[in-house]
Amino acid sequence: MVAAPGKKPGRRPGPSDTKPAILAAARELFADKGYDGASIRAIARAAEVDPALVHHFFGNKEGLFVAAMEFPFDPTVMIPQVLTGGPREEIGERLVRAFLGIWSQDEIRARAMAVVRSAATSDQGAEIFREFLTSAMLARVSEVLELPRLRILVAIGQMVGVVVLRYVLEIEPIASAGDEELVELLAPTLQRYLGGV
Amino acid sequence: MVAAPGKKPGRRPGPSDTKPAILAAARELFADKGYDGASIRAIARAAEVDPALVHHFFGNKEGLFVAAMEFPFDPTVMIPQVLTGGPREEIGERLVRAFLGIWSQDEIRARAMAVVRSAATSDQGAEIFREFLTSAMLARVSEVLELPRLRILVAIGQMVGVVVLRYVLEIEPIASAGDEELVELLAPTLQRYLGGV
Repeated sequence: MVAAPGKKPGRRPGPSDTKPAILAAARELFADKGYDGASIRAIARAAEVDPALVHHFFGNKEGLFVAAMEFPFDPTVMIPQVLTGGPREEIGERLVRAFLGIWSQDEIRARAMAVVRSAATSDQGAEIFREFLTSAMLARVSEVLELPRLRILVAIGQMVGVVVLRYVLEIEPIASAGDEELVELLAPTLQRYLGGV
Repeated sequence: MVAAPGKKPGRRPGPSDTKPAILAAARELFADKGYDGASIRAIARAAEVDPALVHHFFGNKEGLFVAAMEFPFDPTVMIPQVLTGGPREEIGERLVRAFLGIWSQDEIRARAMAVVRSAATSDQGAEIFREFLTSAMLARVSEVLELPRLRILVAIGQMVGVVVLRYVLEIEPIASAGDEELVELLAPTLQRYLGGV
């Protein structure tokens, strides 16, 4: 997919080749250099396109990362929407419902599981996931909610654990528990962590 | 290590060979048949020893499983101790402290991580882990605490998520957060789940 450095491709990439070539280069460079280390400029160079084209297709580095990792949805868009899409006193319930809604979709779940597994099994997967979570997501959520990062991570931890038990290990009765049962248990926990004073 | 069915070993296993042979047979049969499907009798047969010897070394099937999986501690002993080792109003704090204490030990952490990774990555690993958790642990904890299993799983989920973020992904600031900070955040959550009425 990606031409080796210095090697000229046999023909100029057509419009339908360009996007996959950028994504392939992005995956390669994110894997090699990590999230922080891989610049849009370097990715564009590896894909032999103009950096402006990368910005045109994917906006910024976060957008490119989300597309390259084949995230099933764009967390950089969705999470701030959920956080601020209603009263702060209902943030716990809103987060649990949004979360269960996403995971209830088969295709989304399959792709998200691949991300989770890669993060759990390869040091490189963990590294990339960690950098993205820290650089792109955690800083922003912490700023929007005006809360310390530790608090946000503990809340994320609750939902990560539910994912592991419900979707990865499929342990009963949490695997087939209804959404309402889970909202009742989990919403007050997230509310306490993220509700603010 | 384990002789194929019907194949007689060249010599009778000496005392120092017997235990590893049982453990190897147990790992093989738990992997093949799952936790519920692998009987002590079948494991003893595969290791070419008397089932009484298995009971002598490992007590019951739970004990054999814990030894075969090289769990870093015996959860079938430790968890009930922590649950009932103090007043119910402090169960949340007690659990968080016990949990952080275990994970703070390097060797224990390394071995526990191997268990977590196997459960996260192989369907077989997930299957065995799930069966053990359900058959051996969840039923007992639910009985001791007189609480529904879903409540217990949500509490376990909180701690599993903390493990993933703190020890597997090593995301800051949760990776290097002090125990007291984590107790303050997590103990009320576990207390609400497990404190009872």
